[in-house]
Amino acid sequence: MATISMASSLLNTLCSSTSNRRRILPLAPPLSLSRSRRRLTIRATETDANEVKAKAPEKAPAASGSGFNQLLGIKGAKQETDIWKIRLQLTKPVTWPPLIWGVVCGAAASGNFQWTVEDVAKSIVCMLMSGPFLTGYTQTINDWYDREIDAINEPYRPIPSGAISENEVITQIWVLLLGGIGLAGILDVWAGHNYPTIFYLALGGSLLSYIYSAPPLKLKQNGWIGNFALGASYISLPWWAGQALFGTLTPDIVVLTLLYSIAGLGIAIVNDFKSVEGDRKMGLQSLPVAFGEETAKWICVGAIDITQLSVAGYLLGAGKPYYAAALVGLIAPQVFFQFKYFLKDPVKYDVKYQASAQPFLILGLLVTALATSH
Amino acid sequence: MATISMASSLLNTLCSSTSNRRRILPLAPPLSLSRSRRRLTIRATETDANEVKAKAPEKAPAASGSGFNQLLGIKGAKQETDIWKIRLQLTKPVTWPPLIWGVVCGAAASGNFQWTVEDVAKSIVCMLMSGPFLTGYTQTINDWYDREIDAINEPYRPIPSGAISENEVITQIWVLLLGGIGLAGILDVWAGHNYPTIFYLALGGSLLSYIYSAPPLKLKQNGWIGNFALGASYISLPWWAGQALFGTLTPDIVVLTLLYSIAGLGIAIVNDFKSVEGDRKMGLQSLPVAFGEETAKWICVGAIDITQLSVAGYLLGAGKPYYAAALVGLIAPQVFFQFKYFLKDPVKYDVKYQASAQPFLILGLLVTALATSH
Repeated sequence: MATISMASSLLNTLCSSTSNRRRILPLAPPLSLSRSRRRLTIRATETDANEVKAKAPEKAPAASGSGFNQLLGIKGAKQETDIWKIRLQLTKPVTWPPLIWGVVCGAAASGNFQWTVEDVAKSIVCMLMSGPFLTGYTQTINDWYDREIDAINEPYRPIPSGAISENEVITQIWVLLLGGIGLAGILDVWAGHNYPTIFYLALGGSLLSYIYSAPPLKLKQNGWIGNFALGASYISLPWWAGQALFGTLTPDIVVLTLLYSIAGLGIAIVNDFKSVEGDRKMGLQSLPVAFGEETAKWICVGAIDITQLSVAGYLLGAGKPYYAAALVGLIAPQVFFQFKYFLKDPVKYDVKYQASAQPFLILGLLVTALATSH
Repeated sequence: MATISMASSLLNTLCSSTSNRRRILPLAPPLSLSRSRRRLTIRATETDANEVKAKAPEKAPAASGSGFNQLLGIKGAKQETDIWKIRLQLTKPVTWPPLIWGVVCGAAASGNFQWTVEDVAKSIVCMLMSGPFLTGYTQTINDWYDREIDAINEPYRPIPSGAISENEVITQIWVLLLGGIGLAGILDVWAGHNYPTIFYLALGGSLLSYIYSAPPLKLKQNGWIGNFALGASYISLPWWAGQALFGTLTPDIVVLTLLYSIAGLGIAIVNDFKSVEGDRKMGLQSLPVAFGEETAKWICVGAIDITQLSVAGYLLGAGKPYYAAALVGLIAPQVFFQFKYFLKDPVKYDVKYQASAQPFLILGLLVTALATSH
């Protein structure tokens, strides 16, 4: 349980420190997501820049900004000149924990994880692959594509400020991508796989990361697709990697975790409420913009609750009533906090809601993983 | 042999009709490749446009252009208004045959292909996946990323001319990508695979296509990486799909075909000679620009000949002297045409060289495939 409390305290740290509306965190905790920079062509940027400018919150961080925030890749960061600290900032370490947690769930679901030195070492390499390497790669690409709008709204960011050159960024993306795919291949060999499942998972995830940020597909342009891709990257991909590492990734687990990712989509929507005004001005169709805030609120909690209830129903149907009951027990406080915070005022209480409800969702993931392992 | 002569006559058609230096054909026959649009930022485009403008060959096709050329996606095309013909043009059908041939090689190498209705049907679906769907997806993305430079040099192209809207292009990319990956999944089920090898191959190939054209990785910016990615997409990927469909894709075949792809890299370089002047002006580091034309000529023929000779050596070492001899017999005319045409004047004779030498390389691929099938 030490791991769990560590993960939730990290997530809480994230929640309380993240006031940044413009940061996009694919393959990342939906706690800090925003997709406000969608559908920006060069021309659109130039046109809309002035409208947005007036609203841009903090123009630049204080010179006395936090070095810790800088390293975590979150707002309030100190202006940094050390290239390695800047490189780390671009990979947004604060977004890694959920991916690392996903690997834990997959390992648990495999039913084969042993507390041996070897299995722990394997897990650590798998977490390295999912977090620092492939999430880092994703975050760096995303910052690269945001450099033009960042130049207007957050000119102190590493890329627009020129603290790191574009060539250095491209090198970083190569190293992280090839490193992540390479680690995946090593894990396949280590696990004695006949088919390099983890290698292929890493390839598929890398494709997803690319089309999330890069036009013409640019998934984050679309409220449904972008948020679901985030949810799936956050819940399914690391689970699959962990499960393939220690056991067998079966089609029913693939379907179950993809369904679970709909809850991730719901969580991703939470972050669209605070940027409704800017999104509307820029003509971006986030779900609150497209459906109105009232409807979007219910789409959001519906996605979160109905998904988890369905999984509880599945566990019941699979003859695991105790696990199903535990999951329902973990859904209850989420619903409570939805009424107490989110449904009352999704903008004012978004961080409070995420901080209070998310640990229960995360524990529910582990309960489901353990249930499927028997 | 009917298939072979059909393929080479199609390739010859391509050679004689392709005078277009600016078209980029990833996952495509290196016969018509050029990567002249590398490293173009918006600003660079604006700056360099005037220099290039003066050199742009045919400014617009005659109103009486060829409807057949239009459908094949090659130059001299008629201005077309039918949206389906425009969609077909974007997928550049003229670039499909080598991919289809690659599937034939893989099927031959598997040693399991039978002339039954079922196996032929499977092959056709695999060819559909490799050619129209995944090559079509690749070509469409590439045209999307070239729309700004095309607006200057070839304003009559479908995207810059507005004959097809950007939303329609994005829809086409989605349909082709998901269709190709879907067909791959169907092939896996059809072949009774435990692991969806072809599905994962399609995912990996799709990633490669994306990073070939899309920044920040944009492989085509780099003479070595871009040309090798082309060579591998042209030779290895469809071979792997065909072999996985009918047999087992073994690590030694993966390595052998990747080595063979170095010959593909050599062929891709042939097309860089005609655009040396423009590339130099734009600061693009194609190999002839980077090493000078004299050196690049020898890198090019070296890559083509040494690779094939090494494969012949491998076949000899594997106890297949007759196949090795056949391959050497097919290398000889390529060397002859290199001296007769390419080394004399790579710009003047590029099409003649490709048309005369390529059929022998292609037959060599099949010889190698058959050799490895025993």
